[in-house]
Amino acid sequence: MNLDEFRRHGHALIDWLADYHQTLGARPVQAPTRPGAVRAMLPADPPENPEGFESCIADLDTVVAPNLSHWQHPRFFGYFPANALLAGVLGDLVSTGLGTVGLSWQSSPALSEVEEVVTDWVRKMVDLSPQWVGVISDTASTSTLVAMICARERTTNYGLAKGGLQAEASPLVVYASAGSHSCVEKGALLAGLGRENIRMIPLDDSYGMRPEALRESIEQDIASGLRPCAIAACVGGTATASIDPIREIADIARRYDLWLHVDAAMAGSAMILPECRWMWDGIEGAHSVVINAHKWLGAPFDCSLYYVRDEQHLMRVMSTNPSFLQSKVDGQVRNLRDTGIPLGRRFRALKLWFLIREQGVSGLQARLRRDMANARRLAEIVSTTPGWTVVAPVHLQTVCVRHEPDGLSGAALDAHTRAWADAVNSSGEGYLTPAMVDGRWMVRISIGAPTTEWTDVAGIWAAIQRHADANSKRTLHSSTVAGE
Amino acid sequence: MNLDEFRRHGHALIDWLADYHQTLGARPVQAPTRPGAVRAMLPADPPENPEGFESCIADLDTVVAPNLSHWQHPRFFGYFPANALLAGVLGDLVSTGLGTVGLSWQSSPALSEVEEVVTDWVRKMVDLSPQWVGVISDTASTSTLVAMICARERTTNYGLAKGGLQAEASPLVVYASAGSHSCVEKGALLAGLGRENIRMIPLDDSYGMRPEALRESIEQDIASGLRPCAIAACVGGTATASIDPIREIADIARRYDLWLHVDAAMAGSAMILPECRWMWDGIEGAHSVVINAHKWLGAPFDCSLYYVRDEQHLMRVMSTNPSFLQSKVDGQVRNLRDTGIPLGRRFRALKLWFLIREQGVSGLQARLRRDMANARRLAEIVSTTPGWTVVAPVHLQTVCVRHEPDGLSGAALDAHTRAWADAVNSSGEGYLTPAMVDGRWMVRISIGAPTTEWTDVAGIWAAIQRHADANSKRTLHSSTVAGE
Repeated sequence: MNLDEFRRHGHALIDWLADYHQTLGARPVQAPTRPGAVRAMLPADPPENPEGFESCIADLDTVVAPNLSHWQHPRFFGYFPANALLAGVLGDLVSTGLGTVGLSWQSSPALSEVEEVVTDWVRKMVDLSPQWVGVISDTASTSTLVAMICARERTTNYGLAKGGLQAEASPLVVYASAGSHSCVEKGALLAGLGRENIRMIPLDDSYGMRPEALRESIEQDIASGLRPCAIAACVGGTATASIDPIREIADIARRYDLWLHVDAAMAGSAMILPECRWMWDGIEGAHSVVINAHKWLGAPFDCSLYYVRDEQHLMRVMSTNPSFLQSKVDGQVRNLRDTGIPLGRRFRALKLWFLIREQGVSGLQARLRRDMANARRLAEIVSTTPGWTVVAPVHLQTVCVRHEPDGLSGAALDAHTRAWADAVNSSGEGYLTPAMVDGRWMVRISIGAPTTEWTDVAGIWAAIQRHADANSKRTLHSSTVAGE
Repeated sequence: MNLDEFRRHGHALIDWLADYHQTLGARPVQAPTRPGAVRAMLPADPPENPEGFESCIADLDTVVAPNLSHWQHPRFFGYFPANALLAGVLGDLVSTGLGTVGLSWQSSPALSEVEEVVTDWVRKMVDLSPQWVGVISDTASTSTLVAMICARERTTNYGLAKGGLQAEASPLVVYASAGSHSCVEKGALLAGLGRENIRMIPLDDSYGMRPEALRESIEQDIASGLRPCAIAACVGGTATASIDPIREIADIARRYDLWLHVDAAMAGSAMILPECRWMWDGIEGAHSVVINAHKWLGAPFDCSLYYVRDEQHLMRVMSTNPSFLQSKVDGQVRNLRDTGIPLGRRFRALKLWFLIREQGVSGLQARLRRDMANARRLAEIVSTTPGWTVVAPVHLQTVCVRHEPDGLSGAALDAHTRAWADAVNSSGEGYLTPAMVDGRWMVRISIGAPTTEWTDVAGIWAAIQRHADANSKRTLHSSTVAGE
């Protein structure tokens, strides 16, 4: 492909994407794909000779778009908003097109320094103190693993430079909110701590971690000769967007000298709103915080921000300095490779930089407030509708609901919940994610795609009711028939 | 930004990128930036209100492009070719613009299945047997960490599900080629093994690992009551693109029941050439292999391929299955989240798919052969030029050279080497990476940017000679003056 062809195909693909977004609302939200269907459309062998690029573009309409669940769709209410705002899309295009790689500062100065500046912008936007330093990584899972490793090395006084974790006399223990994301347990396991040394701390009625239970668990482990190492708390838990009481947890971390990692992957975006900052009150007592700019904030995936208060510690754990990466200016610059697992680095800061400038802080705030208002409005309607329950407090943009018709409970109720959620998803009218709390299935309505307005929320609520009613009628009828 | 604006700005940025590539040859290759200069150009605070997107585009010419070292430049000879071929750039644009996230198969079926198909295409292209299954990750550093963790869990019989590494009675040991990338040591350290349990195996005259030294080291550790766990060998080592003897190393791995990880991050691309496959003869005896499609092959960074023979083991180590990720089809599909550290997944397969189709296997092969021919031609010229040495065998596209004028040795020779390399880089005429072998500095000329032709190689060789001669005259003159 020469540069003239690049212009021509590039313009065509920009237009293809614009058309895709323009027609999104008319597409089924969940992919109707059968397992293996895409694979069956593709040749088993790579082409020996060049195909025309036109056939690649054509496959977007036949192979790709019809077989995606559409995360940018106005009726996407699954998982979390993973918003790819258009200014961020264009920033990422430039990043890829420049083809620059941040191995060291010298290899891409603008990449390094724009990242420094933009992560500091976000620090100010969420009102963290100037003590905090941020870096961009791919996802919260990666940052959480880094946090677990940093905690491990703090407790072992840099055991990695000696005999490693395997040389430690008594086992390290990690404490996590029972509402924490699966990546916390995974991070602790990958860091070598072992499942027996992970404590899931029970939750209160609002699904926040119970500090008293945390304290008891730590005391018990100390009494047993174990070594408490780290606490992972969350602000915006995965299932219900729950809030752990950070201030009380930070006090406990301080008292027992534990690392405190705060997973604000989801709720971190909301910290740009002063009225939401109570949710992480006490955050200055944490050692590390993760905020996914690729979620609600709108930077295209992947763009996860990892903030630490002690950057020297992070670098001491993560740094390498082989000869081929040394440069004359090393003493005067930050080499971002020493802050994470990968050596190479995309120019991810560019999409975040473009996004914040194009939207302005006020523009980002307005969109988040719209989504929170829609969530509150929906929660009010659900909670006043007979047979329906809002199962968790609505602090942010996630509304967790359950349809509890008379005559259904236990496993039958779970089956009903999953059935109506599946019916909604299969209909293409919306995309919802069921999840468990308190051992029971419920359905999350996660509001916040870029183009989701109240009419879309009202639309999914109508669809939910229709499918739930139909399924409960079927279920109750068949159980009546079976009972006759 | 609405969709009309997206079209307008998108077209403008496609054209900006085309212009950038068109004018690349006229730019200084290494950024002339002083530390802090980019930061000083940017406001310390984020904008409260939206800026026009035009100002973002304008900053590409003032802030960004002048402060990058240009990896796609025809005279970029640094580190390794991190080629962003244009078809791949456009594939990545689509990936970002779709804004789809692979959490589970259900969340993006096309993302999952195109990745399955394309990694299998590459498997065939490099002639790995059908036993191997590939997944895409960001970088080789990440895959190497995963390999170290998988090796650890194999040796401990899934210690992570019990007491973890800290419950193991005798320490695990990892063996790496002394020519291996820094990420091998880093991966072993992050996995908790500790520096005392990493053995760097010495190299032979061609900078390949000495199998006999490996065997002795293993025997010694067994005799000391330690537990040999894994070997990391490399094909295309970082400093000199050296080749470890994989078949002999695989035999040793088999005999002692060790995990064998092969880092073919760089040379893996060359395995699409039948005439190069002797370099990893014996590869079928390895447990894991990493091939960076974002290096010489041409998929824009990041796009690293990780192949394993036992996918079930990988998934057992890396999997999580929280309620919110479960779906009806889980038994019938591969959930790629269970193959790596991050949960979320970009549609990285799209850029690789477009690249292979647009180039064809034959197109990719032709470009790699061009680069290898240029490297051989340069090596021949260097080795017959008085005062110059080619310090390592040229198997691929990396030529390692040293200027050794009469009267310079030891530290003075090192200073000369670094000085002339720095002079070339500072002149903007080319970008070179110095590195150490055998305790002495040399300079790597890593050939293979997409538009690098013989004239560019000849040009950098002329510049190298000019700057080296000038510096040696200065050095020898000043030492003569000092000696008078």
